[in-house]
Amino acid sequence: MERVYNFSAGPSVLPVSVLEKVQKDLVSFGNAGMSVMEMSHRSKEFEEIIQKCEALLREILEIPTNYKVLFLQGGASTQFSMVPLNLLKHFQTAAFINTGSWSKKAISEAKKYGDVKIIASSEDKNYSYIPKLEDLYIDPSIDYLHITSNNTIEGTKFSSFPTTKAPLVADFSSNILSEPIDVSKFGLIYAGAQKNIGPAGLTIVIIRDDLIGHANTLCPTMLDYKTHVGASSLYNTPPTFSIYVSMLVLEWIKEQGGLKQIHENNLLKAKLLYDFIDQSPLFSSPVEIESRSLMNIPFSTSSEEINKQFLVEALANGFVNLEGHRSVGGMRASIYNAMPVEGIEKLVQFMSQFEKNIVEVIES
Amino acid sequence: MERVYNFSAGPSVLPVSVLEKVQKDLVSFGNAGMSVMEMSHRSKEFEEIIQKCEALLREILEIPTNYKVLFLQGGASTQFSMVPLNLLKHFQTAAFINTGSWSKKAISEAKKYGDVKIIASSEDKNYSYIPKLEDLYIDPSIDYLHITSNNTIEGTKFSSFPTTKAPLVADFSSNILSEPIDVSKFGLIYAGAQKNIGPAGLTIVIIRDDLIGHANTLCPTMLDYKTHVGASSLYNTPPTFSIYVSMLVLEWIKEQGGLKQIHENNLLKAKLLYDFIDQSPLFSSPVEIESRSLMNIPFSTSSEEINKQFLVEALANGFVNLEGHRSVGGMRASIYNAMPVEGIEKLVQFMSQFEKNIVEVIES
Ligand SMILES: Cc1ncc(COP(=O)(O)O)c(C=O)c1O
Ligand SMILES: Cc1ncc(COP(=O)(O)O)c(C=O)c1O
Ligand SMILES: [Mg+2]
Ligand SMILES: [Mg+2]
Ligand SMILES: [Mg+2]
Ligand SMILES: [Mg+2]
Repeated sequence: MERVYNFSAGPSVLPVSVLEKVQKDLVSFGNAGMSVMEMSHRSKEFEEIIQKCEALLREILEIPTNYKVLFLQGGASTQFSMVPLNLLKHFQTAAFINTGSWSKKAISEAKKYGDVKIIASSEDKNYSYIPKLEDLYIDPSIDYLHITSNNTIEGTKFSSFPTTKAPLVADFSSNILSEPIDVSKFGLIYAGAQKNIGPAGLTIVIIRDDLIGHANTLCPTMLDYKTHVGASSLYNTPPTFSIYVSMLVLEWIKEQGGLKQIHENNLLKAKLLYDFIDQSPLFSSPVEIESRSLMNIPFSTSSEEINKQFLVEALANGFVNLEGHRSVGGMRASIYNAMPVEGIEKLVQFMSQFEKNIVEVIES
Repeated sequence: MERVYNFSAGPSVLPVSVLEKVQKDLVSFGNAGMSVMEMSHRSKEFEEIIQKCEALLREILEIPTNYKVLFLQGGASTQFSMVPLNLLKHFQTAAFINTGSWSKKAISEAKKYGDVKIIASSEDKNYSYIPKLEDLYIDPSIDYLHITSNNTIEGTKFSSFPTTKAPLVADFSSNILSEPIDVSKFGLIYAGAQKNIGPAGLTIVIIRDDLIGHANTLCPTMLDYKTHVGASSLYNTPPTFSIYVSMLVLEWIKEQGGLKQIHENNLLKAKLLYDFIDQSPLFSSPVEIESRSLMNIPFSTSSEEINKQFLVEALANGFVNLEGHRSVGGMRASIYNAMPVEGIEKLVQFMSQFEKNIVEVIES
């Protein structure tokens, strides 16, 4: 079976060279005489893997030394609780910028544990833009400000970040490692692995030292950042195989030239698709130009019927998972780091041909 | 590299035939044109995998229809909080039988959320036995009774289970699927996958319907069983690849003849090792005969020095991860389902030869 072009929003496409390495070493890794899946998390071999994974992430994201890196389970959804349970320490209040479905889930979870102030929202226009940061008043009596750096469902992203006294917390699930960021601007960054990092089942947290050790007394031990910091993510059995594959993806990112080069590729890929959509009479993007995501690109025709036909024909031509999220409809192409430029070129060719056929049918 | 005999307590040995299947389909699974790691958890292909995994587990364990099966993240350690957060609903009291390190961790977590009664303990003799169930008085004012069915570190297991009015909750992490059990005797069963089920990063919960939907109002959404029941374990992104490998392990168990045959193999394997240890002048087992685990077999010589020498020579001969847990010392052979009989036979041969050499040295 030939590989398809997989535009899934997550879990999503991984570099083929990484998959081939995983395949080669699947039954017996290096000199270990066993699969990585069978390794004790306390073995020398696995400790090398997790340490290398952390070192690569630190190098690639230029993570300052006063930040800890954690490899956790539970998905980004568990962070929606873990952040308030650990960070609501002085004011019992968190501020949020509401930019879509994932922001809303984070908000409703934080409400369980403290007060929530929505200091900006793009709900008025269907989350089709990122609120202007210049207009922002940030109350000083908050424990943190939470943003969703890239909105997977709505296809928007922050191109700059609010400056705050309180720690800035960001859900980077869908655009971590897609471009260089200044980690020192954030108090805490979290991301589910299953888009730009590796297989599902792993969540990465980057947390500034001063935010560790203030958990609510009722916080489950496993949801206390301190638990995992103290044990270098080996308090209990971590998702070992996901960490291993993530290490290989990080090696791949380095081979590509690091985040600067990755970012250039991502700009190129996104431009190919947006340029085609913008000039197309058939397809359009619902997202304001300055707010557009490089990772998740929703688009649509004006007809439900034609959208459906497009998805059927796309699938038949090897372009899979192009359905928009059920809450938005239409189409969405998730084009994470591992999607090759060629995948976008072929998609654009296909869209262009589809458009011609539709126009012919309409004109005939 | 030849494969070694891996006696790790977890993550641990997997069937080679399963690893070979995983390897074969790693880059492109069936007709999907992508790796299982790259599949959307909402795709038809992955839904088939998770449904098949559940169906196999239900068939193999004969799970009654009034129980739900959940595929979660967070490890058994997260269950230590999740159980009290969900089950302490009437009396705010849980009873525990304390049989070792893992029981103690479950106990200390439950204390955060309610009262805890230790109704039996084997702490007096270093957890070398399972308390007699006939002597047990079970207070009716408890929300549940928690046991650790197999004590991974101390090498003991329950051979029968207490009869209770309150739901019986069991941490089956280290002996699930090692023998048939009557699920209807339990209110809730949980197990980390990384011993008898599959790769780390997946936790299986089997929960009776009446125990769902009573979570504490401060329970994080992700720690509420109801969240995952309502979404058939697809509320958020599950550990997809671990679920896939677990499905293959369950197929393998079925091919072996199911739990009856698996249990016979396990009895045979354990007997080989215990019989050798019991007749050996050098090695001995710290565990009372009636309480002995089929999965984790601690043993020791009377000398720290000789233990060390044994571990070094064992490693050099391809028997790995035989160190006892740091809290116990000595040696421990974890011989889960996937450890072949031949692995035990060779280990016993090696121990026997080691013993002869030691005796010769002492006598010369
Ligand atoms: C921005 C964002 N946050 C959170 C999540 C939830 O992640 P998980 O499924 O790992 O809980 C997602 C998943 O797609 C996401 O895109
Ligand atoms: C009986 C038992 N309970 C709980 C655990 C903890 O499991 P996890 O590491 O998945 O949190 C273990 C791990 O070995 C165990 O053996
Ligand atoms: Mg979103
Ligand atoms: Mg257009
Ligand atoms: Mg134990
Ligand atoms: Mg003996």
